[in-house]
Amino acid sequence: MRVTTLAGGIGGARFIRGLQTYLQEAFNDVSITVIGNTGDDIWIHGLRVCPDLDTIMYTLGDGIDPERGWGRRDETFHAKEELQAYGVEPTWFGLGDRDIATHLVRTASLNAGYSLAEVTAALCQRWKPGVELLPMTNDRAETHVVVDSPDDPGKRIAIHFQEWWIKYRASLTAHDFAIIGIENATPAPGVLEAISEADVILLPPSNPVVSIGSILAVPGIQEALVSASAPIVGVSPIISGAPVRGMADACLTAKGIETSARAVALNYGARRSGGIVDGWLVDTSDARNVKEIEAAGIACRSVPLFMTDVPATAQMAEQAIDLARATEHAG
Amino acid sequence: MRVTTLAGGIGGARFIRGLQTYLQEAFNDVSITVIGNTGDDIWIHGLRVCPDLDTIMYTLGDGIDPERGWGRRDETFHAKEELQAYGVEPTWFGLGDRDIATHLVRTASLNAGYSLAEVTAALCQRWKPGVELLPMTNDRAETHVVVDSPDDPGKRIAIHFQEWWIKYRASLTAHDFAIIGIENATPAPGVLEAISEADVILLPPSNPVVSIGSILAVPGIQEALVSASAPIVGVSPIISGAPVRGMADACLTAKGIETSARAVALNYGARRSGGIVDGWLVDTSDARNVKEIEAAGIACRSVPLFMTDVPATAQMAEQAIDLARATEHAG
Repeated sequence: MRVTTLAGGIGGARFIRGLQTYLQEAFNDVSITVIGNTGDDIWIHGLRVCPDLDTIMYTLGDGIDPERGWGRRDETFHAKEELQAYGVEPTWFGLGDRDIATHLVRTASLNAGYSLAEVTAALCQRWKPGVELLPMTNDRAETHVVVDSPDDPGKRIAIHFQEWWIKYRASLTAHDFAIIGIENATPAPGVLEAISEADVILLPPSNPVVSIGSILAVPGIQEALVSASAPIVGVSPIISGAPVRGMADACLTAKGIETSARAVALNYGARRSGGIVDGWLVDTSDARNVKEIEAAGIACRSVPLFMTDVPATAQMAEQAIDLARATEHAG
Repeated sequence: MRVTTLAGGIGGARFIRGLQTYLQEAFNDVSITVIGNTGDDIWIHGLRVCPDLDTIMYTLGDGIDPERGWGRRDETFHAKEELQAYGVEPTWFGLGDRDIATHLVRTASLNAGYSLAEVTAALCQRWKPGVELLPMTNDRAETHVVVDSPDDPGKRIAIHFQEWWIKYRASLTAHDFAIIGIENATPAPGVLEAISEADVILLPPSNPVVSIGSILAVPGIQEALVSASAPIVGVSPIISGAPVRGMADACLTAKGIETSARAVALNYGARRSGGIVDGWLVDTSDARNVKEIEAAGIACRSVPLFMTDVPATAQMAEQAIDLARATEHAG
């Protein structure tokens, strides 16, 4: 069973952790490829930080801080305190001391000429996440957010996604997102193959705009999904009209998409109509949406979608795989 | 009173701390310029580390770990642990989490095009060391040590000074020292002026070979000392035939210099004979050397030279200043 998933950070990582558990119980021969979002990467204090790749790597490699959901367990923030004491900006980014080691290794390797995919593979030699973790692209393409300037009313500016997300907690109204450089980005080696050769493709409950949306924006990836032979099933990141975690609502609103399990599914669209999903899981609390989603050509089931622990998440993953195989047989 | 000192790390920093205390008590208008050794700088994990400049900055800025004598107080070593877990070399360098912030600011600033002198001045805006701290040069010129290869007997190799000093604790016999790039290095802006315009020039009890010796190796600095109008007084780093701290004996032996207060003085040489010192302080335990040193044309006094605390060190500094003024009047 070859499963390929696209993924953002915390939600994606936790879903894949459950997916691993389920697949290892249910199948003999399992391989999982994760295509990670690098749109929210940032160069900070001279270090290349890849928040989503690291969250996946740390979560699957048992190094994550389980409370925060990002960064390292038993973390300290002494370097960050000192950077603040030096008065160097930005001061709002949560750069942990253990985490810095990852960024030092990555940055030194990138500066030595290795690609992000090569560096990610090297870092994974330590973490052994049990999946093949691929960046969506080796190219620099960072998401920026068009907002009204907080300092200069009436003026619109584009700020880095991380500044909007962390410093402003997505409180500045986003007028649009722009992934600077994405037009010239190419999928990292292995990405298109992971899509075309998969048995099942899953979209975890990651942010549809700035996580999955960024991956889809890499020229070639959306087309590969449209034409993939494997069934594609998504898991709604929206439950009862609100994101389970994070601020996806602010992103969806900027894109003119309602914050609902239904609207996100319809925005991805049915593959039979040129979209990218064959199936969609909504939470039991959104069961009333199932018929409307199915009417749009997307097989839909309502199942419990709260990732409260690994067993609950493994059951979600089982439902996703099961729906994928059902749509396959139906199609 | 304008005092210029050359300085290595711990010994230099502690002496200057005492010097500040004495000068502030004794004179109204005091300025101290420190020309710091950068020969033991190292690029490590992509970061530019300047051990001696930082030791001076942290010591005079009250950020030093007083037990170790280097690095930051309340330091943690989590990033270092993680770098080790990634298996990236070198693993022997004591890179503290708070300290890393200094290196990140420095490295980012150097990469942005600022000189080491400019970056050092910027870092000192935070630490307010109360001295003007100048690197000996803005150029890269790192000390290497010629040793017998520990892996390949019979073969001589050159390793970085820090590897020899920290990893091998100077236990590999040093055949020679080579400061790679020193021939083309130029004194940092202000260095030659600090020497020519000083009222007194002091050599603290720093390592004569790899600290003071590296500074003297920058083309132009030794000549500036030889022709300076100010008296130059040195403080012996050797007491009773042994370094007070560190492994200066291993360095002196490599250079064919006896590990004694007398031999170090004679190696610097009397200015009247083309050397660089007019006066020399030895410890009271080395009083028997005074006459021989004076016979070589160097005014010499024996005074307590253990820097047990700031008041004791201030008294040493007073003796150095006093000897400088005495040699001036004599000359």
